[in-house]
Amino acid sequence: MVKAREDVSKLTVGRMAVYYNTLKKMKDEGEVLFASNKLSKRTGIASSVIRRDLAYFGGFGTKGVGYEVDYLLSWIGHIMGYNTVWRAMFVGNDIPTTGIGNYRELLPPGFEFAAIVDLDKRNGGYKVPGMQLTINPPASLEKLIRSHHISIGVIAVPYKQAQKVVNSMVKAGIKGIANFSAVSVCVPEHISLSQMNVTSCLSQLSYSLSTGLAEKYPCSTKNII
Amino acid sequence: MVKAREDVSKLTVGRMAVYYNTLKKMKDEGEVLFASNKLSKRTGIASSVIRRDLAYFGGFGTKGVGYEVDYLLSWIGHIMGYNTVWRAMFVGNDIPTTGIGNYRELLPPGFEFAAIVDLDKRNGGYKVPGMQLTINPPASLEKLIRSHHISIGVIAVPYKQAQKVVNSMVKAGIKGIANFSAVSVCVPEHISLSQMNVTSCLSQLSYSLSTGLAEKYPCSTKNII
Repeated sequence: MVKAREDVSKLTVGRMAVYYNTLKKMKDEGEVLFASNKLSKRTGIASSVIRRDLAYFGGFGTKGVGYEVDYLLSWIGHIMGYNTVWRAMFVGNDIPTTGIGNYRELLPPGFEFAAIVDLDKRNGGYKVPGMQLTINPPASLEKLIRSHHISIGVIAVPYKQAQKVVNSMVKAGIKGIANFSAVSVCVPEHISLSQMNVTSCLSQLSYSLSTGLAEKYPCSTKNII
Repeated sequence: MVKAREDVSKLTVGRMAVYYNTLKKMKDEGEVLFASNKLSKRTGIASSVIRRDLAYFGGFGTKGVGYEVDYLLSWIGHIMGYNTVWRAMFVGNDIPTTGIGNYRELLPPGFEFAAIVDLDKRNGGYKVPGMQLTINPPASLEKLIRSHHISIGVIAVPYKQAQKVVNSMVKAGIKGIANFSAVSVCVPEHISLSQMNVTSCLSQLSYSLSTGLAEKYPCSTKNII
């Protein structure tokens, strides 16, 4: 288990995920060392914030030299739990129409979908394009979590069914849930929960429109924080 | 137009939205003055981060006294563009089933839905429970944006249709788009875009599971950042 500072904010964690993805791209491009202002330009996050975030977990940079890409990648990966395998289940509704899209494409390192459930039982047996998985009917949800040793549930379901799906997952022994449904859900204290944030997403818009600061990288997912 | 610091990060903006909502609740509970550690306890964000964020836009606190709830609310509202009216359009698919839920409940101050469009034209004419709005068919999207002076689009549609909806909105003169579909979309440089972030949401889970720091307020939306 990683020793973590208890007071680290969720937003720092969110930024660490952005750093990790950007550093990975920099590594692929052959970079070995970098200065914080380079990471700043690519992520849209201020250099001062980047230096503070990285120092927060132990201070990795050498003044006048910068940071080592490789070392930082492995260290952030360690902090973020990316070096563990997280077996996840995706639960959607009418997946052949709505798609898995970003839920698969933007999966952090270490995460893998081990099972997929569609609340519409008529979609049972459908093979998801580009994945080695077949859709399961809702009745098999709890059994699958147990038999596939699934620890994380990712749900994007109609609002009336969200809490019910969460309850089944908790009953089957899930450890964490990411909820992308259009409604907030409740979990017992020992379960981790992460929900998409409508208020924050819309506040970004009103802020950027009222200040006249439009997004600088509108087509890139790397800057979506 | 608000004068903004160009280097403020999206995450600071996200936190400001959280502060605003929490302060509003504190005001309703009769609080007039507060110390940063009180806001920290209620939001889960470190006191040092809160003090830095607030100082960033101008320094509001008095040492040993704290911050004034009223003053801070109006100031954050000004910075965030909450004092402007943002006329928004929601575009979903099969809204009678999927619901508007959080898209309405977690709307920041200043935002109001002026029109709703369902990609399934069979739902045209449906009255959304609890709202004074009737669902419009997809063909009327562009016309509605123009006639209702809509500046912000909120979309949660199947992945195959997301970019098409965005293109129509841009063509009709929308200023900003919040995309909650399971796929990233592209917009021209002058349009603001905010997309839900699957990577960050899941990274929160792996971080919290690998450090053993479970969420402290699992049933509250106020801490979802």
